[in-house]
Amino acid sequence: MRTQTTEGYTHRMERAVAQAVDAGLTGLLVTPGPDLVYFTGHHPTAITERITLLALQAGREPAMIVPILERPDAEPAPGVAALSLADWADGTDPYTATAKLLDPAGRYAISDSAWALHVLALQEALPGTRYVSMTSTLPMLRAVKDADEVERLAAAGAAADAAFEDILGVRFAGRRERDIGADLARLLREHGHSQVDFTVVGSGPNGANPHHEMGDRVVEDGDMVILDFGGIKDGYGSDTTRPVHVGEPTEEERRVHEIVRAAQQAAFEAVRPGITCQDVDRVARRVITEAGYGDYFIHRTGHGIGLTTHEPPYLVEGETRPLVPGMCFSIEPGVYLPGRFGVRIEDIVTVTEDGGRRLNNTSRDLHIVS
Amino acid sequence: MRTQTTEGYTHRMERAVAQAVDAGLTGLLVTPGPDLVYFTGHHPTAITERITLLALQAGREPAMIVPILERPDAEPAPGVAALSLADWADGTDPYTATAKLLDPAGRYAISDSAWALHVLALQEALPGTRYVSMTSTLPMLRAVKDADEVERLAAAGAAADAAFEDILGVRFAGRRERDIGADLARLLREHGHSQVDFTVVGSGPNGANPHHEMGDRVVEDGDMVILDFGGIKDGYGSDTTRPVHVGEPTEEERRVHEIVRAAQQAAFEAVRPGITCQDVDRVARRVITEAGYGDYFIHRTGHGIGLTTHEPPYLVEGETRPLVPGMCFSIEPGVYLPGRFGVRIEDIVTVTEDGGRRLNNTSRDLHIVS
Repeated sequence: MRTQTTEGYTHRMERAVAQAVDAGLTGLLVTPGPDLVYFTGHHPTAITERITLLALQAGREPAMIVPILERPDAEPAPGVAALSLADWADGTDPYTATAKLLDPAGRYAISDSAWALHVLALQEALPGTRYVSMTSTLPMLRAVKDADEVERLAAAGAAADAAFEDILGVRFAGRRERDIGADLARLLREHGHSQVDFTVVGSGPNGANPHHEMGDRVVEDGDMVILDFGGIKDGYGSDTTRPVHVGEPTEEERRVHEIVRAAQQAAFEAVRPGITCQDVDRVARRVITEAGYGDYFIHRTGHGIGLTTHEPPYLVEGETRPLVPGMCFSIEPGVYLPGRFGVRIEDIVTVTEDGGRRLNNTSRDLHIVS
Repeated sequence: MRTQTTEGYTHRMERAVAQAVDAGLTGLLVTPGPDLVYFTGHHPTAITERITLLALQAGREPAMIVPILERPDAEPAPGVAALSLADWADGTDPYTATAKLLDPAGRYAISDSAWALHVLALQEALPGTRYVSMTSTLPMLRAVKDADEVERLAAAGAAADAAFEDILGVRFAGRRERDIGADLARLLREHGHSQVDFTVVGSGPNGANPHHEMGDRVVEDGDMVILDFGGIKDGYGSDTTRPVHVGEPTEEERRVHEIVRAAQQAAFEAVRPGITCQDVDRVARRVITEAGYGDYFIHRTGHGIGLTTHEPPYLVEGETRPLVPGMCFSIEPGVYLPGRFGVRIEDIVTVTEDGGRRLNNTSRDLHIVS
């Protein structure tokens, strides 16, 4: 993102304001995190109780306010050259200063992760303003990636795939989950990740808890092991899951794996412009339900990815927005048999004019490890 | 924190509800982060768009709602044994489920860092509820530490001090700021930190930007270098700043250092139960102003520390609450001469019945390094 030009950021700001106006809003209020990186390239060292806020609105110049201490860090960001920069000092009221950037009767979308501290203070400072969350109103603001973004996501995916190919060569049996997780983290970094967000190693019964990260359990011969890992490479996210099996799987393990693979494949093949997010979820769910395991698929089918590893669009029942070329998200159905084992298969997929393109391309066979 | 008993967490919950009622509130809404760790010991692996919320209120059992995926992680937390645990699944409306925990006419303090996404959705789901930020209403909720917490902060401070003693032995001249920062991070970890939050190395003119972290500038002979570093050890924070000088300082550098040291000492000596936060700030500021450098002390004098490295109480103009035994905060005046150099000296201090006790105890002389 740091390589974006000021013009590129200006274009994003203008497009976002147009989308906000279309949604009946005065504009957008953007706080530190991926939204602010998307519009300015500015990424404060730490997100603290000191307010930083970018206001994008129709008929006004883009304006950002920062703590005066952080002004020297904000100024070099390429998008900041295209906006008016204000600051506030400790001992003054930051919300009075921030309120000056806003329309006292404005209706704004605000970054999802903006602190309650700030949004409640703005509601009090400007009682005539109204706020809605970015995701509820402009959920697809960052969801449609441009070509440069898709290629960065593809590169992050290829790096995660390389880490997976490497991990197949390590020893599983007799080692703790967290040691295998440390291997995965090291491999992601070796393949160019600047940040590792998660390295799930769910062996045997731990694989049946889809949120289990990793622990002290020693992997045994005969275990199914779910590996789900990802992070950030050159500013964009990776996220892939493959099950591996220590030694020969049982008939049941093979059957469950085949069901999950078929569900993932069916959902992938359903991807095309115009299909709704919920319909992709339904396609995966139907395969698993018809095979008799519907009660054991206990999460949504996928989530968007970009500057973060978790963002819109969400492939979930109730999400009726259609897929659009450039959207990028995970497809990751799973089956979780409590106390026994789990299987999940996950690829990042981008929508093209013709259908889906996978950004993870390692084999979806059940890999046997030692 | 993880060693706290269920009874200890119950006590914290009860005390907080009593404070909330005293403040005219129905109760508290606590979201993932330090507040949730404080009350339950539960620290979700990642803070995402999926709502987790603990409701503490008069006349109702403590109740927490989590995404069903995260239930297995929440259940073992010691404080969770003392509350009623609910969950919600993907594809259902989490705010409908969360609203059931709340009084539809309730007035709640909510964690500062709760996501705008969640607070706006609760405002919409329950139009009769009112929300205020935790810091604006119950700012001192976690500010008064118990004896166990003070000793953890003291241990974190001693570890940071040990890292500082070690860094005095490394080479400064001819090395990049970021390499010295990497040394500091390694030393903090060697001395028991599980997390490094910041390693500021501000050399020469970079030291005049109090928010500068570190960069590619090569430290030169004759540089003043500000070292400001800290992180988390056994759940509690460290944060200390010392200036060092490469070779002999100039007269002016010595003079500015002496002024900052005198300001820091005066503020430390002012610490006692009953003095207001703002008065401690004023004491430090007066010393620097009377020496003619008032325009160059461009931030508040200090911030609280505990489960985070940045929390109430804030030693800043306008903060008229009094110090109470058990409060822990930084005292860190500084002088910043743009384009030239800066000096800051910072210790963590806790309030005792008799005055202040420093939790950083390395020498506040201007250290000469090579």
